[in-house]
Amino acid sequence: MSTDDQDDLIFKALSHRVRRQLLDLLKVEPRTTGALCELMPELDRCTVMQHLGVLAQAGLVIAERRGRERWNHLDALPIQAIHERWIGPYAAYASMMLSKLQRNLETPEQQGSA
Amino acid sequence: MSTDDQDDLIFKALSHRVRRQLLDLLKVEPRTTGALCELMPELDRCTVMQHLGVLAQAGLVIAERRGRERWNHLDALPIQAIHERWIGPYAAYASMMLSKLQRNLETPEQQGSA
Repeated sequence: MSTDDQDDLIFKALSHRVRRQLLDLLKVEPRTTGALCELMPELDRCTVMQHLGVLAQAGLVIAERRGRERWNHLDALPIQAIHERWIGPYAAYASMMLSKLQRNLETPEQQGSA
Repeated sequence: MSTDDQDDLIFKALSHRVRRQLLDLLKVEPRTTGALCELMPELDRCTVMQHLGVLAQAGLVIAERRGRERWNHLDALPIQAIHERWIGPYAAYASMMLSKLQRNLETPEQQGSA
């Protein structure tokens, strides 16, 4: 799978609030699918499992079978990868543009003489 | 629009490689839609405009009409917002887990005695 394919999958996985909520729950500790369903009573088990499937496909959740239970573990490494390539540089760009704007607002007289 | 709605739109906008490529091009400088189409000859104008529409809906691109031209500007502030709430903390979590793993690999004898 190319990096583009992988990045598409990771961003797609993050683009649904339920999936982001599941990641937040797994960031605290690994949980069984049953425990996740109990924490999200507004959703049926099938919906929760579909969302876990999308997260697993993007490599963000690793499922481990223990007897009849399925334990879900967060793997945040793919998020670190998109942080380094995409999000970090754009956040830095936004900060730079804000600083530039602030400087221009603080010294408006210099703009005219430039 | 709620923060959840907004985050859904931003991640969805980032989930297609063509849209990420458009953002990279606009990070260099604002460009007309015509200029963007010339830089992406493999896509027809209609496809490029559809992708720009998704980026504009997420607040990542601001379009400005000048005569018959449409200038597209990058606004990276929404990316900074998802960086602070989502990506930054998860990237930090990934780093922490890697450090922990490295420590465990470097001192395996301590695991047995713990």
